[in-house]
Amino acid sequence: MILNFKFASIPHIIFGAKKLNELYDIIPKFGKNVLYVIGGKSLKESGKWNEIVNAMEKKSINISIISICREPTPTLIDEAVAKYKSKNIDLVVGIGGGSVTDAGKAISAMIPKEDSIMNYLEGMGNKIHDGKKIPYIAIPTTSGTGSEATKNAVISEVGSEGFKKSLRHDNFIPNYAIIDPELVLSSPSSVSAACGMDSFTQLLEAYVSTRASPITDALAFTGMRYVKDAIIPACSTHALDIGVRSAMAYGSLMSGIALANAGLGIVHGLASALGGLFEIPHGVACGTLLAESTKINITQLQKIGDAGKKGLLKYAMVGALLAGKEGYENVDVSYYCSILIETLEKWTNDLNIDRLGKHGITIKEVDKIVEKAGLKNNPVQLRREEIMEIVRTRI
Amino acid sequence: MILNFKFASIPHIIFGAKKLNELYDIIPKFGKNVLYVIGGKSLKESGKWNEIVNAMEKKSINISIISICREPTPTLIDEAVAKYKSKNIDLVVGIGGGSVTDAGKAISAMIPKEDSIMNYLEGMGNKIHDGKKIPYIAIPTTSGTGSEATKNAVISEVGSEGFKKSLRHDNFIPNYAIIDPELVLSSPSSVSAACGMDSFTQLLEAYVSTRASPITDALAFTGMRYVKDAIIPACSTHALDIGVRSAMAYGSLMSGIALANAGLGIVHGLASALGGLFEIPHGVACGTLLAESTKINITQLQKIGDAGKKGLLKYAMVGALLAGKEGYENVDVSYYCSILIETLEKWTNDLNIDRLGKHGITIKEVDKIVEKAGLKNNPVQLRREEIMEIVRTRI
Repeated sequence: MILNFKFASIPHIIFGAKKLNELYDIIPKFGKNVLYVIGGKSLKESGKWNEIVNAMEKKSINISIISICREPTPTLIDEAVAKYKSKNIDLVVGIGGGSVTDAGKAISAMIPKEDSIMNYLEGMGNKIHDGKKIPYIAIPTTSGTGSEATKNAVISEVGSEGFKKSLRHDNFIPNYAIIDPELVLSSPSSVSAACGMDSFTQLLEAYVSTRASPITDALAFTGMRYVKDAIIPACSTHALDIGVRSAMAYGSLMSGIALANAGLGIVHGLASALGGLFEIPHGVACGTLLAESTKINITQLQKIGDAGKKGLLKYAMVGALLAGKEGYENVDVSYYCSILIETLEKWTNDLNIDRLGKHGITIKEVDKIVEKAGLKNNPVQLRREEIMEIVRTRI
Repeated sequence: MILNFKFASIPHIIFGAKKLNELYDIIPKFGKNVLYVIGGKSLKESGKWNEIVNAMEKKSINISIISICREPTPTLIDEAVAKYKSKNIDLVVGIGGGSVTDAGKAISAMIPKEDSIMNYLEGMGNKIHDGKKIPYIAIPTTSGTGSEATKNAVISEVGSEGFKKSLRHDNFIPNYAIIDPELVLSSPSSVSAACGMDSFTQLLEAYVSTRASPITDALAFTGMRYVKDAIIPACSTHALDIGVRSAMAYGSLMSGIALANAGLGIVHGLASALGGLFEIPHGVACGTLLAESTKINITQLQKIGDAGKKGLLKYAMVGALLAGKEGYENVDVSYYCSILIETLEKWTNDLNIDRLGKHGITIKEVDKIVEKAGLKNNPVQLRREEIMEIVRTRI
């Protein structure tokens, strides 16, 4: 087999319970002026924010703070950049869910620029970012997007002219990712469910992607190995179990690394469209579409003969993994593809992942959604009709 | 399971046949003055060196050249640094085997310093390097050390007071690693054999290391999956097969990433001692000790009851992989541990890996060797007696 791939680095990773404390020793390496990008109130309520502020005082670090309560818009990023541009920020630290870690990433990338982020968004602007940024540390408080390890920040504007687009450059991979599963313990079960489904979607889509390589396969597979037994307990009986939360945090981290280097598929192609048009959390959009998309992908792969064999084998290997029958040979492809679909459907139900209808999306809007959706690196070509079927089934 | 690990980034990787060409577009990003660190004559004989020189001329890049024909000594590094310190070098590019890629790494790290590398070598000097370096691109022409992805450069001095020590810092991970399997096609079979055994040793030792994490496990395992079917053909019937050479190059790359983050074991503990005392190629030292060390490790793990179970299971999983029976459950531990040892012994024979005696090492020297050897992150404690047995068996 001839191998050909590129792999765009990964952050310096510090993973484990209580590892947030290592932040305090890392910060002084970068300088004295730190801009914290944080979420709403959960970090403060957990007492962690006080800990951080006290530690900064002890180290004589000057901090500025931006609080982000929704998915970042171009205006939000531009305003934050305008406000902090002249403050000699040495380092940006983003602590929060995917919206926060993406916002921090985008702010760190835009501080050195003189114009709007709109000019640099993929598919929107006509400028290419040169990658120069303020150093950035990402600290996730959910196990979902894997943004702590990716090279893009997702920026959205919701509405009929809405969009969900990326600011992307290899250099935007955070300098450090600190993953402390204790920070996820207070995440409510509905959030953990949506985030968990998002990260599994990313792992599976990267694994079957047309751009997958042996290294992204290995990372996606090890991620799925940890998520498979933890996803349900993390959202129910074992929400306070640090081992279970560690497994989900590890899966999310692997999903970020895998997607940054292998790309994604139709679920994310549709989730981008949905996220631009409607107020629907990204994890819910992915989670609700995953089982049906996988089913349609498998059906289409089965129709194309030899060309579909590689993709089917990969899906089957994931099915076997989920069935606790992991192995690389003599996989009954058809049987384990069914197991995969059934398991994903079961997760969707057990985790109470909303249907699209719950977020105001009706059958009338299917056309518009599919119009805006891209296939990304889906393992098989899908026609408009099949993509419409995925969405219709999940209204 | 509670997860705790650190992972120190990896280079930007470009992997595939003919990818050397991408070097020419990357260099101008760093500047106009490039110091090439190359090996002896093989690069020149292959015609690749002429290609590079022509490309540099076309891009108006000024090049300086150092040729390295043996494992780098402190004097070699210090002299190279003294010579090129004032030349405003923007980038160092190392193209060659492990000695060359390590020498390039060390030179790039020492140009900004005013004193000898001896002051910064682990276990030798009393200074800690701050990580500041000239950017470095590593391009391996053998599939062995994985130095293109590691954070250390091995520096040796051979003799009774000899040593083999590392200059190490997270920042010394090369900025780019370009792995073009075409560059390995002309590697003679004895070199390919020693290098292949070195890289498999690194994969296996990192996999069973006490510092292993799920991510290093995944990377080591994917590496072994490719090496297992390629190691014999690459050194015999398929030396000119780019697919086989790709597989070995991939295994070597994974071995570098895995060892940089998980550490190594007794084989490398002994190989460092051997390399300081005698003129023996590193790959031969590793290759000749691998099967016996694995056998002794397994025997010792079997003696310690429950504490040894995790290590034995890991060895068994590699045994099953080598037997083409990869799987993560119901592995017959004892049976597949035997298979592993047998396979490694067979490789050692089939690849004609020298015994230590061939390099002038006699039974009288076993004491001195073991005295200087470290256990590193070996999966089980070994007493002096057991370490002596490993060496004695391979004289």
